[in-house]
Amino acid sequence: MNFSIVRFTTGRLLQIEAFLLLLPLLVSFIYREPMQYPLSFGAVILILLVIGQLTSRKMPRKTRITTKEGFVVVSLSWILLSFFGALPFVFSGDIPSLIDAFFETSSGFTTTGSSILTNVEALSHSMLFWRSFTHLIGGMGILVFALAVLPQFESESVYIMKAEVPGPTFGKLVSKLSSTARILYVIYLSMTLVVVILLLFGGMNLFDALLHAFGVAGTGGFGIKNGGIASYDSAYIQYVIAIGMLVFGVNFNLYYMILIKQVRQVFKSEELKWYLGIVASAVMLIGLNLLSSYDSLEKLFRDVLFSVSSVITTTGFSTADFGKWPLFSQIILLLLMFIGGSAGSTAGGLKVSRIVILFKTVMSEIKRVAQPNRVVSIRYDEKALSKETKHAVANYILIYAVIYIALLLLISFDSPDFLTAFSSVAATFNNIGPGLGAVGPAESFAGLNDFSKVILSFSMLAGRLEIFPMIILFSPRTWKK
Amino acid sequence: MNFSIVRFTTGRLLQIEAFLLLLPLLVSFIYREPMQYPLSFGAVILILLVIGQLTSRKMPRKTRITTKEGFVVVSLSWILLSFFGALPFVFSGDIPSLIDAFFETSSGFTTTGSSILTNVEALSHSMLFWRSFTHLIGGMGILVFALAVLPQFESESVYIMKAEVPGPTFGKLVSKLSSTARILYVIYLSMTLVVVILLLFGGMNLFDALLHAFGVAGTGGFGIKNGGIASYDSAYIQYVIAIGMLVFGVNFNLYYMILIKQVRQVFKSEELKWYLGIVASAVMLIGLNLLSSYDSLEKLFRDVLFSVSSVITTTGFSTADFGKWPLFSQIILLLLMFIGGSAGSTAGGLKVSRIVILFKTVMSEIKRVAQPNRVVSIRYDEKALSKETKHAVANYILIYAVIYIALLLLISFDSPDFLTAFSSVAATFNNIGPGLGAVGPAESFAGLNDFSKVILSFSMLAGRLEIFPMIILFSPRTWKK
Repeated sequence: MNFSIVRFTTGRLLQIEAFLLLLPLLVSFIYREPMQYPLSFGAVILILLVIGQLTSRKMPRKTRITTKEGFVVVSLSWILLSFFGALPFVFSGDIPSLIDAFFETSSGFTTTGSSILTNVEALSHSMLFWRSFTHLIGGMGILVFALAVLPQFESESVYIMKAEVPGPTFGKLVSKLSSTARILYVIYLSMTLVVVILLLFGGMNLFDALLHAFGVAGTGGFGIKNGGIASYDSAYIQYVIAIGMLVFGVNFNLYYMILIKQVRQVFKSEELKWYLGIVASAVMLIGLNLLSSYDSLEKLFRDVLFSVSSVITTTGFSTADFGKWPLFSQIILLLLMFIGGSAGSTAGGLKVSRIVILFKTVMSEIKRVAQPNRVVSIRYDEKALSKETKHAVANYILIYAVIYIALLLLISFDSPDFLTAFSSVAATFNNIGPGLGAVGPAESFAGLNDFSKVILSFSMLAGRLEIFPMIILFSPRTWKK
Repeated sequence: MNFSIVRFTTGRLLQIEAFLLLLPLLVSFIYREPMQYPLSFGAVILILLVIGQLTSRKMPRKTRITTKEGFVVVSLSWILLSFFGALPFVFSGDIPSLIDAFFETSSGFTTTGSSILTNVEALSHSMLFWRSFTHLIGGMGILVFALAVLPQFESESVYIMKAEVPGPTFGKLVSKLSSTARILYVIYLSMTLVVVILLLFGGMNLFDALLHAFGVAGTGGFGIKNGGIASYDSAYIQYVIAIGMLVFGVNFNLYYMILIKQVRQVFKSEELKWYLGIVASAVMLIGLNLLSSYDSLEKLFRDVLFSVSSVITTTGFSTADFGKWPLFSQIILLLLMFIGGSAGSTAGGLKVSRIVILFKTVMSEIKRVAQPNRVVSIRYDEKALSKETKHAVANYILIYAVIYIALLLLISFDSPDFLTAFSSVAATFNNIGPGLGAVGPAESFAGLNDFSKVILSFSMLAGRLEIFPMIILFSPRTWKK
């Protein structure tokens, strides 16, 4: 392990967090908030700058990063960013408990959207802003951001990007990695801006429009009203958010393809077809299941589209309390929670591409059992799928299941029932937000004890970084000389 | 597809079922039951003999059996045996509904033990006998039995045995397959006899002792008292049954090793070590979790050992209503339901060996991610594990998960809550018996509608035959010329 590169990179990232905290500081001035708010942000900015300066002053001699070091940098810095990002909430007194604040900030950066707040409207504007802004930062990844603005990270940092960008494979858009990062961020921020403008058109004020756009872009889902999105009694706004979430659940590489006018590539994307197919099927199945309990077909379609889009993109905004829907619809939603969005998007979950590859593997295996001598090859995106990818996907899903069970057992001491335990792990590990039962869309995670909150915070971080970086960080072998 | 071999073999099996039905017929005479009982058995015996005669009169020209044909024979005959085995219940009026009776008989043959009866004591002696006797037949497999008694099945029928004996690999004990089958059956029936004798010592009458021994031997779990095993207020009987179940959850090949004095082989068995280790850990964890709610340590140990042994061997007998235990204990039991017993035993579930191989695969994959250049090989039973076995296990578990989800969706229309739906699939697909929630140990499956009962009947059959034979049977490709 090259410890100095870990120290140096993490230090630089803490400095970047200090700069990002200037924005909520500005918000606290704009809204002329009481002194504790600007002071809290100011204090944390100072702490971060000092620590950042101390740890990143000395450039490491070797700047080559291995997979293992990349994983350690990514997981360590995500934990530290969540920890320091939690401090303003604690200092200002808006979220007095450090564990609660850490839960909330991890939930923000990992774009989960689970909340321990029972009265979100009690927070100050600057705190609400910072809380939602973490979604925007975490969505595309802070290391990708660092790469975009500080190109000296370039050398070999493909491992960092692989660790932070979700999905089974990672494709560089252009040969230079920092340019890839910059392109991704430009697309990401432009699309966020479009959502802001569309929400302004719907009559939202700028503050609300910005914060909801952050939630949509990062597929995060922190709300700023106690009543959730349903508080905006506007079909237009609900459609903008529903479709916005779907758009951010698509692999960003496809938007780049559109930019460089390779639209045919987009239509060829198998993951996109499956993604849209799954959304359409889920809307249809749940719509039929709920048909008798709605008077207006438009309202039915809107509620179901919104819920499906919110859950499959692992955003977690809600307009209807699907905790009260029939079991069949709830199980469909539970399945979407596990499927998640596309690789290379801001969404969480197992990712559509992994599910498709899994499905094709299962199908070919069934054929192979019937006819042992036949060679069955799997095609994905018009290419034969390599054995390595197939096994990596199968192994990922199995590791995912093992960690899932461990989390379930840890959380079971503190859960009133199976659905609550099962879905609170599902909601955090897949970075969704609300679960079902006692942590359903109309409830919060406030009722859990501190132990469960810490476990679920790490569940969110492990889910966002796709498990391996977290395992490597906590493996004793990593820290042996 | 060689249709004539399918027709011939299935016909022979129906004839064997006719002979097996002579035993409950005898019981109905012994207990001087009303005429409808002997008449019901007699009628079914006649039907089976006629059909068997018609279909198996003409020997097929080619007697070579392929994997596909082996799968079709096994799955088709299990369905037919369950169907015809259900008729005595219907004819006698003890279970008037054909769907209920089919559920009950599938549950018997597959050694599941789920029941639609709310008052089991209302059944006649002969019907109770037949119901429990199906456990004994299904436990070791009726095709294995056929192989043992009718050696003309010999040619190439390794595929039949592979399809019926559970586990990822199937090892012949001796070179001749019919001899292997005979050895297995001799061990099986002798051990059953030992259980009968031990139960008689505990003060049970012969009828009760026989029927409970059938339930233990097949790891089936049909009870004959409304109060379950708890009706026998005897610690001795409960220990006999608890340890008996554990013994029948061990690979029978190991007992053969003891017989031929290769005891060292037994101690080398990795599956055995893990099996016992899992049982010990589960007893300890649940024991600690329940410590405060029991006065007597002995009673606590006995209840926990009994439940763990009953669930991991997928038997389903119960002395304590674990549906009322804390969530942590319930989730441990739920995990044991999925793990199941050892390969080559009469138990269901995924099998310990698959779980061990899965666990080792996951561990090696984690190591490989940290150090991509290192070659990590997995050892199992002191041999390097072949890639084929590793992938077959991973694929099996993934296929298992896909079918599980499909069953869950089908059953969700008719379930009051998630735990009931989730555990009724778990209980049938893993051949356990009782689930949790509305199908918990103190309840029954009587409340489900006919659609759910049919689905769960096939869930039991698919689980017992380890999925593939069922898929092949229902695949349209199989029936194309």
